[in-house]
Amino acid sequence: MRPTIRFHLTALALLALPITGAGDPQLLQRAAEVRDRALADNQAYDIVAGLTSEVGPRLAGSDGDRAAVAWALIRLKALGFDRVVAEDVSVPRWERGTATARIVAPFPQILAAVSLGGSIGTPAAGIEAPVLRVGNLAELKALDRVQVEGHIVYIAGRTERSRDGSGYGKSVPKRYGGPVAAASLGAVAVVIRSVGTSNARLAHTGATTYIPGKPRIPGFAISNPDADLLEYQLATGSRVRMEVMSTARSLPSARSANVIAEMTGSDPAAGVIVFAAHLDSWDLGTGAIDDGAGVAIVTEAARQARLAGPPRRTIRVVLYANEERGLSGANAYTQAHLAEIPAHVSATEADLGAGRVWRLSARVSDEVWPRIQGWMPVFEPLGIELGQNDARGGADIAILGRNGVPFVSFSHDATQYFDYHHTASDTLDKINPADLSQAVAAYSALAYILANGAEDIGRVPSPKGTQ
Amino acid sequence: MRPTIRFHLTALALLALPITGAGDPQLLQRAAEVRDRALADNQAYDIVAGLTSEVGPRLAGSDGDRAAVAWALIRLKALGFDRVVAEDVSVPRWERGTATARIVAPFPQILAAVSLGGSIGTPAAGIEAPVLRVGNLAELKALDRVQVEGHIVYIAGRTERSRDGSGYGKSVPKRYGGPVAAASLGAVAVVIRSVGTSNARLAHTGATTYIPGKPRIPGFAISNPDADLLEYQLATGSRVRMEVMSTARSLPSARSANVIAEMTGSDPAAGVIVFAAHLDSWDLGTGAIDDGAGVAIVTEAARQARLAGPPRRTIRVVLYANEERGLSGANAYTQAHLAEIPAHVSATEADLGAGRVWRLSARVSDEVWPRIQGWMPVFEPLGIELGQNDARGGADIAILGRNGVPFVSFSHDATQYFDYHHTASDTLDKINPADLSQAVAAYSALAYILANGAEDIGRVPSPKGTQ
Repeated sequence: MRPTIRFHLTALALLALPITGAGDPQLLQRAAEVRDRALADNQAYDIVAGLTSEVGPRLAGSDGDRAAVAWALIRLKALGFDRVVAEDVSVPRWERGTATARIVAPFPQILAAVSLGGSIGTPAAGIEAPVLRVGNLAELKALDRVQVEGHIVYIAGRTERSRDGSGYGKSVPKRYGGPVAAASLGAVAVVIRSVGTSNARLAHTGATTYIPGKPRIPGFAISNPDADLLEYQLATGSRVRMEVMSTARSLPSARSANVIAEMTGSDPAAGVIVFAAHLDSWDLGTGAIDDGAGVAIVTEAARQARLAGPPRRTIRVVLYANEERGLSGANAYTQAHLAEIPAHVSATEADLGAGRVWRLSARVSDEVWPRIQGWMPVFEPLGIELGQNDARGGADIAILGRNGVPFVSFSHDATQYFDYHHTASDTLDKINPADLSQAVAAYSALAYILANGAEDIGRVPSPKGTQ
Repeated sequence: MRPTIRFHLTALALLALPITGAGDPQLLQRAAEVRDRALADNQAYDIVAGLTSEVGPRLAGSDGDRAAVAWALIRLKALGFDRVVAEDVSVPRWERGTATARIVAPFPQILAAVSLGGSIGTPAAGIEAPVLRVGNLAELKALDRVQVEGHIVYIAGRTERSRDGSGYGKSVPKRYGGPVAAASLGAVAVVIRSVGTSNARLAHTGATTYIPGKPRIPGFAISNPDADLLEYQLATGSRVRMEVMSTARSLPSARSANVIAEMTGSDPAAGVIVFAAHLDSWDLGTGAIDDGAGVAIVTEAARQARLAGPPRRTIRVVLYANEERGLSGANAYTQAHLAEIPAHVSATEADLGAGRVWRLSARVSDEVWPRIQGWMPVFEPLGIELGQNDARGGADIAILGRNGVPFVSFSHDATQYFDYHHTASDTLDKINPADLSQAVAAYSALAYILANGAEDIGRVPSPKGTQ
């Protein structure tokens, strides 16, 4: 059912082309006009420049987080949204403090390290112990307590670079699960090779988890070059000893907010489409690609779609609180809007940076999927290909999917994303304005279609086993 | 006079080719064999892996510096040099301590900063002041005292990326001269955009200088993304205030050493050829590209040239002490070997990383230059082109040049060099083993030619005005 008409043209040549594929030709023609206007002129870069430069790091519960909520309320009102509100969310709070790691023997060296997000700290004197290397989390879990006890467990394993970002998913379990697995075998600390592709001497943070009632040990990441250094020393066959220190600590939970901004629909019975991103960031960078870019994309897409006239359905931008440390905002939103879930026509999330969009996928009923495919003439001129009816949606909207809300999703080119993600280098300069504009054009056209289509795109059964 | 015979072949195809260009065909044929053996099998990567992983940072006068001298003595003896000695050098000593920089207003942010090498520290409470931006050092010098007094001077200016590394030379004067120039106008501190091309959130160190009897203020570098952040805030038109803090300090001078290793020549009257690199490094990285690579290249080149049989001239590898903070080793060497300078037939330095060699140049008399050109059939198959008779030699051997010693020099591809140079990311993984081998092959063949040529390459007059 893939449309046979495909355009491969430069952005400037798109405007005049009639849409002749499947679907509602008038709707798609207007969507193409929205796309082209957004491609030529949009404010997304200004939005993410403002958020990163005027607010910067905004870890959930921090001063920066509160500043981000205040910034978003002002900025979204100024952008012309009909309704802008902050909905209260309770978020866990954690302070990174300082972290150090060094090789004590055989060849003393200081390593570039960070505490994993949510990790406990160490005693003030630090922890010194011999290092036990494992290749991955499964190898660790297969060991006996006698092998692990009293060691600092080092978990190796490189993150593969790929356009679809799939290397991250393969590599990240050690970060989430390493400290619990190692602690259960008597280890005193965990150090992982960063879950990222960067060759800079900056380690990659991101959440780790503990299990209530189970032993807790501190978790650290070291940069890829530092992991190489450690592996060199381990390969000498000498007993390697490390010392780690961290003042990380958890604090009482704090107040944050989901920031919600709407372009009101002309038909109150037609429901809402959700365009989602998250407002919080990790604390090391300024949160440009994760997820300032998403904030800018969904905000500007809603504005661009509205420039074509009042939408039939309400376009609701949701900037979620605390995605990074437990999806507090996503859970609070669903709780607060439970009665309204049936009116949620679709959900779309932007949380994979500012790279060019290269694929459209969805999670809809089998009956509706051909209709989505019929939209491709709008997106193919942007270099976007058709994916499958298997979209995961994204971390924040997953809970909506479990409640039957269908997803229409874009894949961003993530080839470089994990060079910067969750590191100090997640800064504005990593965003290419032309790539960002391409993404904004895609999301803008999608927002127009979803908000103005004659029919909605149905419900989906809970996607069991895919969360 | 450029030879008309050029080969453009893969490394594996080189071995059998007869050398038919100008010069001594037998000498060049044997040099080509040295080249090919070095290309196929050399220990350079092992050498730099050892230095960076077993010693690591080795700032002049530090424990690491002493460890590097000890490491080099053992390693060079093990590599089969006939004579390995350490010659005492007094070096200045400086400790970086910690440095922080933050924007206080209008939008508070913490910046990634380092102290410039040799900088004084700040009072314990730091220095807070309004920021004055200048585009470069010349702009600063053109200002009046009333404009500068009481400010933290921020010196902008990006470092251009280029194969020949020339962007560094254009950008680095602000680092050397910024603090003195700003202090003379009453500034309280200097912050520069890093002299480097990296987009990582790691600042670039390197020496700054003071003038005895003139006012001293502390100097800092911030990373390129942090410079962008600062410039965003300056561009808002609001008064920007920063706070900087540093515990950097100078200490009494310390003992270090030039490490000298020779492959003894068969003809004591034929003199020595010098192959130079520096053993010290900055303290932030492990000194892989600056100048562990050079240490590995010149060491291995001497060994490879010796594999072809005893050289006629002595091949002297000199691993200089303290290049980075004042050329202590270069000055001490010249002082100690003054009577022997006439026996120095040539000097060649490797101190621009481990990138592929792309150009051969020299600094010889006009009469000798055609003879150097006649060597190109040995080098062209490696993708090396002929440069000019204008080589600068390198920082450590410049003083030999001023004493009449001719240079034969290679240019390494420096396109990526200033992404890592003088930052924490100067680590082993930045060295591509294949590129390193190409460089080793070039230097090995050159060592063979210089050590075994029937005639020496003369003297050069002091290259006035080029230092």
